[in-house]
Amino acid sequence: MTTFKLVLEYDGTHYAGWQRQLNVPTIQETVESALAAIAQTRLTVVGAGRTDAGVHALGQVASFRTDRGLSEREWLRALNAHLPADISALSVVQVADDFHARYSAKGKLYEYHLLNRPERAPLLRERAWMLYKPLDLYAMMDAAACLTGRQDFSSFETAPTENDNPQCHMQQAELRRQGDLIVCAFYADRFLKQMVRSIVGTLVEVGQGKRSAADMPRLLAARARAAAGRTAPAHGLYLVRVDYQDTPIPNPT
Amino acid sequence: MTTFKLVLEYDGTHYAGWQRQLNVPTIQETVESALAAIAQTRLTVVGAGRTDAGVHALGQVASFRTDRGLSEREWLRALNAHLPADISALSVVQVADDFHARYSAKGKLYEYHLLNRPERAPLLRERAWMLYKPLDLYAMMDAAACLTGRQDFSSFETAPTENDNPQCHMQQAELRRQGDLIVCAFYADRFLKQMVRSIVGTLVEVGQGKRSAADMPRLLAARARAAAGRTAPAHGLYLVRVDYQDTPIPNPT
Repeated sequence: MTTFKLVLEYDGTHYAGWQRQLNVPTIQETVESALAAIAQTRLTVVGAGRTDAGVHALGQVASFRTDRGLSEREWLRALNAHLPADISALSVVQVADDFHARYSAKGKLYEYHLLNRPERAPLLRERAWMLYKPLDLYAMMDAAACLTGRQDFSSFETAPTENDNPQCHMQQAELRRQGDLIVCAFYADRFLKQMVRSIVGTLVEVGQGKRSAADMPRLLAARARAAAGRTAPAHGLYLVRVDYQDTPIPNPT
Repeated sequence: MTTFKLVLEYDGTHYAGWQRQLNVPTIQETVESALAAIAQTRLTVVGAGRTDAGVHALGQVASFRTDRGLSEREWLRALNAHLPADISALSVVQVADDFHARYSAKGKLYEYHLLNRPERAPLLRERAWMLYKPLDLYAMMDAAACLTGRQDFSSFETAPTENDNPQCHMQQAELRRQGDLIVCAFYADRFLKQMVRSIVGTLVEVGQGKRSAADMPRLLAARARAAAGRTAPAHGLYLVRVDYQDTPIPNPT
């Protein structure tokens, strides 16, 4: 058996998220079907992050094990021949047998794209959250700065379970303007369920003047989802990259 | 009667181009339908550029005349309420009665997006021309540099008519790398039919080593479409901006 690491880009618009479910199209199931068609047997892929319905990926990572003797290049070519146009395999590399896309991950970079201008952007529909009134970017940056470091992120977790470890080490939480877009970049060792979307929804409320950046420490200390803002829509979120070794804090892409 | 200048953004994917035609959806007809619903009478819009099927716009300009007494802001709000999600009105401003979106235009900026990486990009499908083998960007830049100045662009015109004036003043023809994208920006006082797509198709052949940048002067001098390369696909092209006064050469956006 050989273990492969697979890097995927996808447009999440027409999928009910990463994880296999009954009767709805998912990324995992679509990738597994492509692999099965190539390997002529059922294969399971493990994803680094379980992206929600509508969330996109520029660099999702998945792993699979197989005894089908194809080279990395052959797997890549065959996968892209079998995958639909809204999913693409960017690379396939052989890895050590103890590699696990989720458990071996050391860090992930997510970006959230907010479009902030008076009129909607047809070319960015399903690609960014459109907010028509001007946001106070500096207040949002101040609020984001409170999120770095190793902290308890319970206030930004949807539907936590008792066993969850709420500690995450947020190495980067930065906002930058890029034309009419506000790109929010978050790099951490791990993320809780809907954590980025909960953070962005809260930052937007700061940008709208509904909350103060100075309230962020109290909000974190509350350790209760109700203390934070609404959950931002899925279609503005991108899983950009997953790292498997300790690397320096990346530049946002 | 009042004359208005309208700036439009659109995703051209699902339209048979700007110009009204029988039995196919066009941008012009869709905008005219929205205006008619607001004005309660048939109105005609004139577009600055007749974009082809599949071509996008970030700043198409159109003009219309009406005696319906709405303010600029009321027209803008009403238009965006009536237009579909893939077309957006960015601004409506009252202009002098002799304003004509096409004849008054002094310059236009087009961009063409090439994606140059080994695998397809799901998030850029219908947004960029994907070319999988590495292009020689520096050779393409050299070739593009031959295109500036006031010249006869007959070699890049599709289906010319006898009356056409083939002279265009190309003030900018620049390529830049932006991640995996190669963005080609062209600013001129006027453009011939499918001129940008013919230029880009030719530049790509230079980037692929099929033509030499040094051949560009001879190619222009031939004044024959057959001398140039193939026409690049429509879905990588964007009408970015139309200017109505003499302005300095713009920075690419």
